[in-house]
Amino acid sequence: MDRDLSTLMTIAVLGGTGKEGSGLVLRWAHCGYRVLIGSRDAERAQAKADEINGMLNAALVRGLANAEAAAQADIVVLSVPYAGHRDTLASVRDELQGKILIDLTVPLQPPAVRTVYVPEGKSAALEAQAIVGEGVRVVAAFQNVSASHLQKLDYPVNTDVLVCGDDEDAKQEVFKLVEGIEGMRPIDAEPLANAVAVEALTPVLLYINKRYKVQGAGIRIMGVE
Amino acid sequence: MDRDLSTLMTIAVLGGTGKEGSGLVLRWAHCGYRVLIGSRDAERAQAKADEINGMLNAALVRGLANAEAAAQADIVVLSVPYAGHRDTLASVRDELQGKILIDLTVPLQPPAVRTVYVPEGKSAALEAQAIVGEGVRVVAAFQNVSASHLQKLDYPVNTDVLVCGDDEDAKQEVFKLVEGIEGMRPIDAEPLANAVAVEALTPVLLYINKRYKVQGAGIRIMGVE
Repeated sequence: MDRDLSTLMTIAVLGGTGKEGSGLVLRWAHCGYRVLIGSRDAERAQAKADEINGMLNAALVRGLANAEAAAQADIVVLSVPYAGHRDTLASVRDELQGKILIDLTVPLQPPAVRTVYVPEGKSAALEAQAIVGEGVRVVAAFQNVSASHLQKLDYPVNTDVLVCGDDEDAKQEVFKLVEGIEGMRPIDAEPLANAVAVEALTPVLLYINKRYKVQGAGIRIMGVE
Repeated sequence: MDRDLSTLMTIAVLGGTGKEGSGLVLRWAHCGYRVLIGSRDAERAQAKADEINGMLNAALVRGLANAEAAAQADIVVLSVPYAGHRDTLASVRDELQGKILIDLTVPLQPPAVRTVYVPEGKSAALEAQAIVGEGVRVVAAFQNVSASHLQKLDYPVNTDVLVCGDDEDAKQEVFKLVEGIEGMRPIDAEPLANAVAVEALTPVLLYINKRYKVQGAGIRIMGVE
């Protein structure tokens, strides 16, 4: 790994006890990042951190309440169900200022999780930007990544990750996080407004999983080397 | 080709003088379909048909005014700029009844063609269904296919085609049209509401073309054999 360890980022994954969030925590801890799990319940967060540390045979991950995790991180990742999106963001708004927020949220309306739902703000990521304000650089990414693939450390995650955001430096940081996970390739899909496309792709992939009886269908952009 | 020629469909491509539409006309005529080009101007349609017949060395394609082309076809393909979407559909509403309408339209707001625009009806295909009524089986497909690749007959179009629609039989017909073009694979992405995702992907691909200096970026769904 040719990363400069002195500038290593601390990543907080809010909602990191969930399937998708904890999969990313596992992968990033495995490749050397300092990772914090945030949850509404700090004890649950620590229990999940203990579980992941056990899988990695090292004490790399800590669990905290969401606001505390956000306060201690350089990059904050939001991985909560859409129903909790607005409230979670509002609760950590102050801690996010000046930081990068990576929003994984897909606006789904359970139980219809295989049908695209377009929220009032067009996309969860655009809604996030409106909630947290211009002091936070919001980047939309990882919405299409299969949680089940993330959980298997020896499994290369065979997918491209479309990254949308209006700030070039923030996107570059997110590219590094994508490249840290084996098999993933970041694709610049700027601006943040394009998160509509990436979020809407998730219910389509969930439909494809069911229709073709597969697990974790992903996408690749063809024609880009 | 193991297609039953006795049931061969006639396809009308409205807006078939455009780059995308004429590319599809070329490909489908090449693989044996009877194809009509529709345009507001019947003479322009015939001129484009003559050009394509010249490329194929056979008189396979005819040009007609949009309504006449729609009336003579079993399957009608709509390939017009979003600005002309509503008016074109309204003008052929009667001729479409009982038929399959394949809508390729992407709601773009030129000059911002690389930024997702979500129209009032969420997607062009959903708006089309509302305009033409329940007597027409609307299928959304081909929005992400590069026009420049279609024009080169010896070039396999390396992309999956996401097909959205609420009618199973209509989708099966569209699958055949996809499979008729070398390199393309149809992927069932039902229901029609999911056209939001597919339409929104087009400006993202146009952005990727520019950002990575490539032509005709496409997508593949991974994990589906």
